[in-house]
Amino acid sequence: MPQDKTKPVLAVDLGGTKIKAAIVLPDGKITHSRNYLTQAKDGCQEVINKVVFAIEETMAKSKLEFTELYGLIIASAGILDIKNGIVTASPSLPGWNNVSLGNILTDILGVQINMINDASAAAVGEHCFGAGKGLKNLIYLTVSTGIGGGIIINGKLYSGIDGCAGELGHMVIEANGPQCNCGNYGCLEILASGSAIAKDAQNRIKSGADSSLNELRIDSISAEKIARAAKQGDKLAREVVNKAAYYLGIGISNIVNIFNPEMVIVGGGVSKMGEIFLGPARKEVEQRAFSLPAQTTSIVSSYLGDDAGIIGAAISLFDN
Amino acid sequence: MPQDKTKPVLAVDLGGTKIKAAIVLPDGKITHSRNYLTQAKDGCQEVINKVVFAIEETMAKSKLEFTELYGLIIASAGILDIKNGIVTASPSLPGWNNVSLGNILTDILGVQINMINDASAAAVGEHCFGAGKGLKNLIYLTVSTGIGGGIIINGKLYSGIDGCAGELGHMVIEANGPQCNCGNYGCLEILASGSAIAKDAQNRIKSGADSSLNELRIDSISAEKIARAAKQGDKLAREVVNKAAYYLGIGISNIVNIFNPEMVIVGGGVSKMGEIFLGPARKEVEQRAFSLPAQTTSIVSSYLGDDAGIIGAAISLFDN
Repeated sequence: MPQDKTKPVLAVDLGGTKIKAAIVLPDGKITHSRNYLTQAKDGCQEVINKVVFAIEETMAKSKLEFTELYGLIIASAGILDIKNGIVTASPSLPGWNNVSLGNILTDILGVQINMINDASAAAVGEHCFGAGKGLKNLIYLTVSTGIGGGIIINGKLYSGIDGCAGELGHMVIEANGPQCNCGNYGCLEILASGSAIAKDAQNRIKSGADSSLNELRIDSISAEKIARAAKQGDKLAREVVNKAAYYLGIGISNIVNIFNPEMVIVGGGVSKMGEIFLGPARKEVEQRAFSLPAQTTSIVSSYLGDDAGIIGAAISLFDN
Repeated sequence: MPQDKTKPVLAVDLGGTKIKAAIVLPDGKITHSRNYLTQAKDGCQEVINKVVFAIEETMAKSKLEFTELYGLIIASAGILDIKNGIVTASPSLPGWNNVSLGNILTDILGVQINMINDASAAAVGEHCFGAGKGLKNLIYLTVSTGIGGGIIINGKLYSGIDGCAGELGHMVIEANGPQCNCGNYGCLEILASGSAIAKDAQNRIKSGADSSLNELRIDSISAEKIARAAKQGDKLAREVVNKAAYYLGIGISNIVNIFNPEMVIVGGGVSKMGEIFLGPARKEVEQRAFSLPAQTTSIVSSYLGDDAGIIGAAISLFDN
């Protein structure tokens, strides 16, 4: 791959719910972006086929050849062995254990594939062009199907020895809490993610609780619909959102005490709830974290939204 | 202060139980070291008097003048505002709220005083001359009266925006757990520190549990005595140690998932228990953390022991 940094990057953001593919220009601008449903339950092979389709469609629409790209990168949910392009485990992608995604895609497409964790990519995106532009130390949390994290230290992505640092969603905050998809117990993810919010509401409704959500088919009750009901004053929906926000606040308190960062940026689908979710979380941080770092840390919503991952993935490739 | 890096440093490690003062040479060698009891319950002023006495005695014994030192540094427990030399809060030093320790000591002694968090100092010490010599990313945990943490990233101490990063002892791992001395609930410190271990055993004995520790005066039952009883097969002592080790293991799992470090070094008085404490903690990490980072991270005991803090504090001054 030639090292001409004026060329665009093809980036794919592979999450538990959505796959997003786009062409990203060196200035962070996006073209030919499209979302696909992951439908992770169909299994690993089907999802990989979808990623291949997304790449081929993006190439076709943009009328670019692989040689005209600076590179291709997949921002994937999960614990990645970056050097070897392996998704070793991924709580948001059930059944993905030691999947050599990089090599599989290279074999199919005949082109080198780079990889980065999806939340790490979003952290880079927000640091370069988003809410945390130019800051020294920031933490990005994506709250969607699962909860991922990205760590910027001294202006650079911190990814640990194997490249899998930042799994803030799998920080235990309730030692004897419910079992998480990762196998651990009481992780932030199983208590405050979109899936956790949906499951909590579904369980309450199954137990006969009163709510405007009762009108919906039980398995169609999503975090998004719960947020809408909460904003319209539904008591059950508010309780569910408050509980998740309480746990999110505990997670962020830990981050504040551990990292003493300038900013915690909350992105991902669930963060679109806005202040009904972030407000109670901020209050929890005020009560729990030490005053000095708590006063320093701004807790804000993502600026780039759904584009943070693909933009950051591309930028991380240029920066390499 | 002249910048001649062949000169020694006077370092003081101010902890919740002990104060240690010594002269540290640029190669990490220690001379004229002495321990004093903090007796934190006597209040802030008494402790400061003791620090002054420790500095004056060390100067007198070493026959050095302040001008013959490279500098003086206090490694203090607590949330420090490094720039302004303030101990803003310190769960291990009750009553220390916004104490301008740096300025107070400078006024008394007539010499510039530098400050660093005690666990951060120990992390630097272990990275320079101890268990983590030359590693890229490591986390140091001190388990003593309280639990402190130090973070080495890319070979350097990471101390956050205000200089107070690394408060891993005040990471909530039990959202609705007991209240910690920091005001928060369910912190690692209130569940796995030396104080937590002593309190747990004392409470069990007060409730009438059978143990060889029954022979002791209740308030003299310390983590050290509990460790000795556990090694001699005392059932209650073993249960108490196992419970604290379980929580320590959860804390380290979080560290492994968040930092993907090469090593977690456990120091502080309680770590001297050795494998009866570290063994069960390691098992918890194997069960809870993701395999990839868990396999990478060695969990080891401190190499420098009680000297890690003063050595690291001095080295951090040379490195500045």
